[in-house]
This record gives sequence, structure tokens and C-alpha cells, in this order.
Amino acid sequence: MPQPEHITRLEQPELSKLDEDIQGYLKICEEKLGLMPNVLLALTIRPGKFRTFTKMYNEVMLAESGLSKLEREMIAVVVSSANRCYYCLVAHGAAVRELSGDPQLGEMLVMNYKVAELSQRQRAMLDFAWALTTDPRSGDEDARAALRTAGFSDEEIFDICDVVGFFNYTNRLAHGVDMMPNAEYHLQAR
Amino acid sequence: MPQPEHITRLEQPELSKLDEDIQGYLKICEEKLGLMPNVLLALTIRPGKFRTFTKMYNEVMLAESGLSKLEREMIAVVVSSANRCYYCLVAHGAAVRELSGDPQLGEMLVMNYKVAELSQRQRAMLDFAWALTTDPRSGDEDARAALRTAGFSDEEIFDICDVVGFFNYTNRLAHGVDMMPNAEYHLQAR
Amino acid sequence: MPQPEHITRLEQPELSKLDEDIQGYLKICEEKLGLMPNVLLALTIRPGKFRTFTKMYNEVMLAESGLSKLEREMIAVVVSSANRCYYCLVAHGAAVRELSGDPQLGEMLVMNYKVAELSQRQRAMLDFAWALTTDPRSGDEDARAALRTAGFSDEEIFDICDVVGFFNYTNRLAHGVDMMPNAEYHLQAR
Amino acid sequence: MPQPEHITRLEQPELSKLDEDIQGYLKICEEKLGLMPNVLLALTIRPGKFRTFTKMYNEVMLAESGLSKLEREMIAVVVSSANRCYYCLVAHGAAVRELSGDPQLGEMLVMNYKVAELSQRQRAMLDFAWALTTDPRSGDEDARAALRTAGFSDEEIFDICDVVGFFNYTNRLAHGVDMMPNAEYHLQAR
Amino acid sequence: MPQPEHITRLEQPELSKLDEDIQGYLKICEEKLGLMPNVLLALTIRPGKFRTFTKMYNEVMLAESGLSKLEREMIAVVVSSANRCYYCLVAHGAAVRELSGDPQLGEMLVMNYKVAELSQRQRAMLDFAWALTTDPRSGDEDARAALRTAGFSDEEIFDICDVVGFFNYTNRLAHGVDMMPNAEYHLQAR
Amino acid sequence: MPQPEHITRLEQPELSKLDEDIQGYLKICEEKLGLMPNVLLALTIRPGKFRTFTKMYNEVMLAESGLSKLEREMIAVVVSSANRCYYCLVAHGAAVRELSGDPQLGEMLVMNYKVAELSQRQRAMLDFAWALTTDPRSGDEDARAALRTAGFSDEEIFDICDVVGFFNYTNRLAHGVDMMPNAEYHLQAR
Repeated sequence: MPQPEHITRLEQPELSKLDEDIQGYLKICEEKLGLMPNVLLALTIRPGKFRTFTKMYNEVMLAESGLSKLEREMIAVVVSSANRCYYCLVAHGAAVRELSGDPQLGEMLVMNYKVAELSQRQRAMLDFAWALTTDPRSGDEDARAALRTAGFSDEEIFDICDVVGFFNYTNRLAHGVDMMPNAEYHLQAR
Repeated sequence: MPQPEHITRLEQPELSKLDEDIQGYLKICEEKLGLMPNVLLALTIRPGKFRTFTKMYNEVMLAESGLSKLEREMIAVVVSSANRCYYCLVAHGAAVRELSGDPQLGEMLVMNYKVAELSQRQRAMLDFAWALTTDPRSGDEDARAALRTAGFSDEEIFDICDVVGFFNYTNRLAHGVDMMPNAEYHLQAR
Repeated sequence: MPQPEHITRLEQPELSKLDEDIQGYLKICEEKLGLMPNVLLALTIRPGKFRTFTKMYNEVMLAESGLSKLEREMIAVVVSSANRCYYCLVAHGAAVRELSGDPQLGEMLVMNYKVAELSQRQRAMLDFAWALTTDPRSGDEDARAALRTAGFSDEEIFDICDVVGFFNYTNRLAHGVDMMPNAEYHLQAR
Repeated sequence: MPQPEHITRLEQPELSKLDEDIQGYLKICEEKLGLMPNVLLALTIRPGKFRTFTKMYNEVMLAESGLSKLEREMIAVVVSSANRCYYCLVAHGAAVRELSGDPQLGEMLVMNYKVAELSQRQRAMLDFAWALTTDPRSGDEDARAALRTAGFSDEEIFDICDVVGFFNYTNRLAHGVDMMPNAEYHLQAR
Repeated sequence: MPQPEHITRLEQPELSKLDEDIQGYLKICEEKLGLMPNVLLALTIRPGKFRTFTKMYNEVMLAESGLSKLEREMIAVVVSSANRCYYCLVAHGAAVRELSGDPQLGEMLVMNYKVAELSQRQRAMLDFAWALTTDPRSGDEDARAALRTAGFSDEEIFDICDVVGFFNYTNRLAHGVDMMPNAEYHLQAR
Repeated sequence: MPQPEHITRLEQPELSKLDEDIQGYLKICEEKLGLMPNVLLALTIRPGKFRTFTKMYNEVMLAESGLSKLEREMIAVVVSSANRCYYCLVAHGAAVRELSGDPQLGEMLVMNYKVAELSQRQRAMLDFAWALTTDPRSGDEDARAALRTAGFSDEEIFDICDVVGFFNYTNRLAHGVDMMPNAEYHLQAR
């Protein structure tokens, strides 16, 4: 059987009854992306959270940073792999395939990032992301020194920690409500 | 030796050179709380993140919710205990002591929430928080059924997942940059 | 970067110098499957093992059994997901997509089989497979009773254990030599 | 709610019916410490164990040793943190605060000793204590070499192992009977 | 190669220079048991600890208790199996073989106590011992209720916790100094 | 009580009704070894598997290899120790005792191989076996480099992975059906 049809296991509000700004935001997504991401539909149950989450998401993933958008998506996938988060693996795995133009890279990061051939910079970044996810106490001076050796600045180290943290957040939100990804992601950029 | 004096292990920007809105926000904190929380000072390294983080924080912890502010702080401490996050245990342990008027409750949640005498509702909430933190795959229909049996609505289940997720984020950010709490927290509400 | 080009990290023998029966076997694979599976090429380093492995593989996965071929492939993927084995997830993930005609099922089993909608029989089978893989001591009378309740006969319980065991073997062989899957699997049955 | 009022979850003997030597010991404790430690009251259920435990405790924690009393208390807290033992964290956390005159040190050892600034000697000692507690197989020649490099003699290495072992004992006794600490510890030496 | 010849990896004091009471104690052991147990020789490095340890050992393992001597040895072996302590598995494995007259029982407890056929009482006792060893937080009201259902009194529950705790102590002491058992144990009661 | 009398917890076919080749194979075993190994009797429930398993077993354990038969048995025991497999520890522990003429070596590998004195080659081999068993992702270039440094060729590395993998298979099959070893092994080569 294909993936379950629910958005989450919680009762969803009707789209037509949402506040106007939220309806507007979702329509823009639909126009730009061709779909309303289910994570946003899931958040409509709590409109205040919808607003702060979307702003934070855009800041974390899309704002200026020494980390490229692809690098941030790579972290997203590796964190979600450690946490085995179906929603985020499907959605951000597609993003890695698309941004990298390299479908196999997406698959390796989903399944076991250790087998991928990576630059020293990306290897250090993903090793740090995996360790901080699975053992938060690992985030110590030795770990930061490894990032510095790989060329990351203080601002970039902050951004790595931020992206790692953020997906540890969304992974648990997705697991906790059993969030299903939009089916469209599966075929993107194969 | 007392706790290290740094805010984080990264280079901090000078306070006087920050954007005005950020300086203003910090001054209001100082007036209201008697201190500028180090997590906010830590975020000044990336002004955009300062702005979205503070908005999300206020939404997650202070906005209207079926979960009381104390309950959200209890989740914060239990998640941070699982992740052994010094910053969050010190800051939110103080908050639990203060909001509950019960210093021993704060200590029990920091050290081992299982020994605390809790209502069935709070027990279910904290068991869920611990499990979703330490094994994200545990967030399944059985886990949600236990919350429903304890009386939580769908909106409240969403809020629980959201608070659990959020502190899994901040814990990793704090570990990743070695964030130190304001020393003032240690003596609050003992 | 796409997946590494090596078959394994060990020196491969030349195809043209292999024993005739092995060259013959590989040619038949190529004709039937359109490719020589890299696991077989990897085994050519030790011809005796090539011969016993291929016979065992065919017996475990293709012989008469109360478990359908799809069910055996489902176990293969869930075991390989627990062990995060890139080779087996790519190769047997493709097999699940193909045999089930359900690409999303393949993705769910790779990423987190718990989110899939499964019959009681398949749920019991995969829960057992996951547990026996990650904690071999879990294979006790309670675990067998759950399989029996789900309708499995003694022969089928034996076959489940056998398939679970077999992929715990191949996963470690693949990890130990860093075996890469044939690139063709990635696009099969999407 | 404050911590539960029981000493343990087992039926306690009446104080007035205890053997005279035990009553005497407890009275001396009360005079010297201002309280009868609940661990001793807990042990009155088995008078023979009361006698051998108190002698061993005094030997382990108070006898001549190359390890200072504070160092032994630091080990006690770090072991109890790894095992999340409420009784020992409260009682020995207070001892660290008092002996060190440094309340923050006590909190850091309770919550995450890794964030504390420590001498090389103390860092080596506490790293060994954590590892021997959470993974007993870690106690190998490499681990002993690290202690020797940090300046510990053979007698001191024996004493470290002994203190680590002893609190792995008391932590499990306290967990097993749900022992509650004397409430007085909470406010000591803040 | 047979087991290493050292008693521990620390420098041993000369037997002839030990305090008289300790020399005397060891001679009595030799007469009664036919050997001086290496754990006692190991303790001669710290004479005070020799004295308190031997008293505690006798109290824990040999004093009157609702637990038979065999039951206490069974707990010793199961705890030592969880902690993979070579010294204690060899010495107490021999004791189980001897006291039970059942060499296979000794082997099952060393290797995987779950496969042994046990009375409900012994099963409950050993399940509790394993859990309290590997996850000290497991010692909760549910765990005590299971012991009560199996017929254990409060004094016996205390004794179980005490024996479990004690071997978590000795296991870590033995690992920490790499203690070797007397070779004689290997052939006892086969 | 001695070990349970069953071969497995599944219904065994009658010996006299088995296919002739299988009856013949078992008789040869009995003549050569003095017993019919229970693993073979267990496999008679699925005759096809009996045939492929025995061939693979002979290839893995007895065929020409740069690894001696003793070395392969040592790996078998260390893998089975990590997985706590009673059947394989009893049967292959006996084999190590016999092939090495060193009963204590057998015990050390069963209980904690780390305490054994080993050549650098054997240490590297067993460290790799333990790691690949307990954390399959550990099988990376660093791990293979350690084997190469210890003198292993590519063919031998393949064989090590193969033996490690094979016992991760048999351990799970034995756990899954609760296979009991022939009682004769217990006394062999003590």
C-alpha cells in the first residue's frame, strides 16, 4: 500500500476557514512550488505557530549564509536519516537531488552518508551533524576544532548547529504527529 | 572553578554595534528579567536568526495553549535532561522552580523526572517527551493514544510535540556552541 | 558527486580470468536481469564463496516458501534499514518497488517501516525482523507467540528468521568491503 | 509537588526498635550532620548490611587517599549523573558545593561535567569515571595510561576504580528501592 | 595463549609485608578454599579497603537472607554477564555450577540467562537484575511490583537490589584494574 | 535446571522421514564428530536450506583461506559473544578450546575477548569483528586500514567480513528459534 493519505494523525482544520494571511501564504506556495507542503498544512492547526515556523524556516534554510542552500539541505537529510524521519527524508531528499543535480547523492545521504564521496569540508560538516544529533554531548571543543580545520568560520559553525538543531526539531514534530509528505516529492529529480 | 565565563565558544559581536531593534529587544529583557539571557546574546552573531528565534520562542513558550506555562517549562527541563544540556537545565530548571513555587520539583525534573509525583496528565506528557527525545521513532499511534487517554486534545498533542521538538533544537544549538547560562539563574527560587 | 565507482574497496579479479562456471553464471544474470549484480562481482574474489553464496541466495529468496517473494524482499529492506546498508537498501528497495508495484512502499521500508500501512501479518513480520536485527536477544517465546498470533506456521517462522539472519550477513559483508550497488537500481520501478 | 515523603518504597522498621549500636550510630550522625541520612535509615531494614555499608562508606569516602575528599565527591556526582540517580545527585551534589565552595561546580557535575573547566588531572579522572560507568569494558590499558599520564599512581588508580564502583552500587540500590534524599540537602551551600 | 598471569595491572605489594590480620585472612582462605582469591590479593594494595570489602562481601553473599546462596550467585553471574566482567564470570560461574550441581545452568547464566528454564521467582529476580544493571532508571514501581508478584518480601527486594548493586561495583573494580581470576575456577564443577 | 531439551521451539520433522541425502549427511556427522549437531537437525525443517547452509558452512569455516581454522572459530565466538548467542558460544567456544589446546582462551573469547593476550594480527581481526557486529557502519576505510596494517591481504579482509557476517546470520537464526546446543560440547577440551 502507498503511504497513508492523512496529513497528520490529528484533526486538520478546513482550509477555507483559515486566517487570510495563512490562506495567502499557502496559495503562494502552490503557485511557486506546485504544491502546498504538508508541513505547512499540518501547522494550520495552530496559526501562531504557522507564522513563526515559516519565518524561521526561511531564515534557517534560505537566508544569506556561508553555507550554500545545498549544504543546508544535505545537513537536513543527514539529521533526518539519523532520526529516521520519513517526512523530512522524502521532502529534503528530493531537495538534495534537485539542488545537486545528483540523484545518487540524495540516496546516499538518506541511507548512509558515510558511503558518499565528499569534500573534506562537507565530510566534516556531516560528521558533526550526525554526532550532534545522535549524541548531543559530542558538541565539544574537539568537534568545533574539526570544523575549523575544515575551514568553517564562527558564523558558519553557528549556522551548522542551527540547521542541525532545527531538523532535530522538525523530525520530532513530524514523528510526533505522523506527518506524511506530499506524494509529489517521490518522483522529483530522479 | 565556577562555570566558564564565555557566552559561547564563538566570537561574540560587540553589543554597541548591533542593529537597533536587537539592542532594544535586549534592553527590554534586561528591564523585565533583570538580565539579558545569554541565548539571546549568543544569537546576536546572526541577527536574522535572533529575530526569528525570539518570535518562535515567545510563540512556543508563552502564547495561548492548552498547556500551561509551567507544563511547557516542565517539558523543556525533561527534554534537556535527556540531552544533558547545561544551559537549558539551568535556565529552565529555574523557571520550573519559580512557576511551580516548588524547588524540589525543579531538581527532580533535572535529575530524573521518573521519581517525581505527578498527575496522570503530567506523567503521560513527560513520558512522551522523554521518549520522543531519546527515540524519535517512538512517536507512534500507541504514544498518541496514551496522551489522549490522559485527556490531551489534538491541539495540545501538537503543542507537546512542538515544545519537545523546540528544545531538541535549542539543546543542540547550546551544546554545539557551548553556551553558558547567566549565573543569576542558579540562585533563583531555591 | 554520484556514488563511488568501485565495486568494493578490495582489488577485483579480472572478469576474463574467472573460472568458466562463474563467467557463465554472470552472463546469465546479465541476460536475465540486464546487469551483473555487484554483489556477485564482489564475490569473484573468492570463487568458492561465489558458488555457495549464489546457491544460498536463491534458496533463501526464491525457493518455495509460505513467505511470498515480496515479503522476503520487505524483510531484506527492513533489516538493511536497521543496519543502514547502502548496497542492500538500493538493490532490495528496487525489488520491493517492482514486486509490489508500489514505489512509496519501497521508500517507507527504506526510511522508516513504522509509518507504512501494513496488514497485521506484515506488521508482525517486520516488527520481528527489526527487533531480531537490532537486539538478537529479543527473539524469545513472546516474539514467536506474536508471529503465531499473526498466522505464521513453524516453517514460516523459520523462514522469517532465516531471511532476517541472511541480510544481517550480507549487510555486514557489504559494509565491510564498502560494496556499491549497480547504478541501474536507482531508477527501477519509480 | 515536592519530592515524595517516603524514605524508600519498602516498609521501614521503627527507629525505636533497632539494635542499640545502630540507634547510636544514627544519633551521632544527627548530632554531627544535623540529619540522619536517608540512606542509613533505608539500610536499617537489614541491620547487618547497615554495619558493613557504613564501614565501607567511611573507608571509600573518608579514609586517607591520594584522592582528596572533594575529588571523591566529584566522582560520586559524575557516576550518579551517568546513572541519573536522584538520591546520590542531591546528597553528593550538596557535598561538592560545600567542599569546593563552588555551587556552580556542583551544578555542572550534576548536569554535564563536560562543560566544567577542570584541571587535566580532574578531567582525566572524571572521563575515566564516566566511561567505566557507562561502558565497563572501557576500563582497559589505554584508559589506565590516560590516568597515569595525568599523574595518578597505582594506589590512586585503584581508589578511582573503587569510588566509581561504589557509586554504581549505591545508585542501583537507591534506584531499586526509590530512595529519597533528606530535603535539607537541597539548600546546602547554594 | 591462556589468561594473562598478572593479578591486576597495578603493582602488587609483597605478601610477606602485609599486615598480620590480612596475611591471616588470606591463609584461612587458602586452607578453606584451596586458593587465595585474586580479588583479595588485588585488594591488598589498600589494606583498609581489604578489611571493609571482605566484611561487606560476606554480609552480601553469605549472611542470612530470604535469598539462597545459589540465588545470590545467580544474580552475581547475570550482572557480570551484562557487564561482561571476566573475573566475576569465571569465579561466580564456578560457584553457580558448584552450588547448583548443574554445570549447564552456570553456562547459560554466563552466556544468556534468557535461554535457561527458571522458576517464575528466579525469572523475575534475574530480569530485575539485568534491567537494573543495564538501565538503572528501570528500578521503578512496576519493576518492584513484578518482584512482589513473584513472591518476594520487602527484605528480599532489598537484598536483590543490594546484590545487583554490589556486583555492579566489583565488575567495575575488576574491569578498571584488569583483574584476572584464579585459574583453578575454570575446571571446578564442570 | 540443565539446558532445555528441545532442539528448537519449532516442531521438528522425524529423522526417519527425511530425504535420503540429508539422513546420509547426518549419519556421516555422527560418525565423524560423535554427534549430530543440533543446528543441522534444526535445519531439517526446511530441506533446501539444509543443503545450502551446510555447503556454505563448509566453505566459510573449512575451505582454504589465509585465515586459519582457529582464527575463523575465534571470530565466530567473538561475534556470538557480542550477540549473546547461547548455541554458537557453546559450540564454537568448544571448537576454540579444542583447536587452540587452550581452554582459557575459549573462556576469554566467550566472556570478554578484550582481556585476552593476542597477537597484533588477532587483536586487529577481533576488534574489527566486534565493531562490524555491534555497529555495521563501523566497517569503513579506517577499519580496513587497521586490518591492512596488521598484515591482512584483500582476500583475507574479505574472509574476515564473510565470517563475521555469517555468524551474525547464524546467531539470529539460533536466537529466533531458540536453538539448544548438543550437551556434549560443554565438556569438550576443558
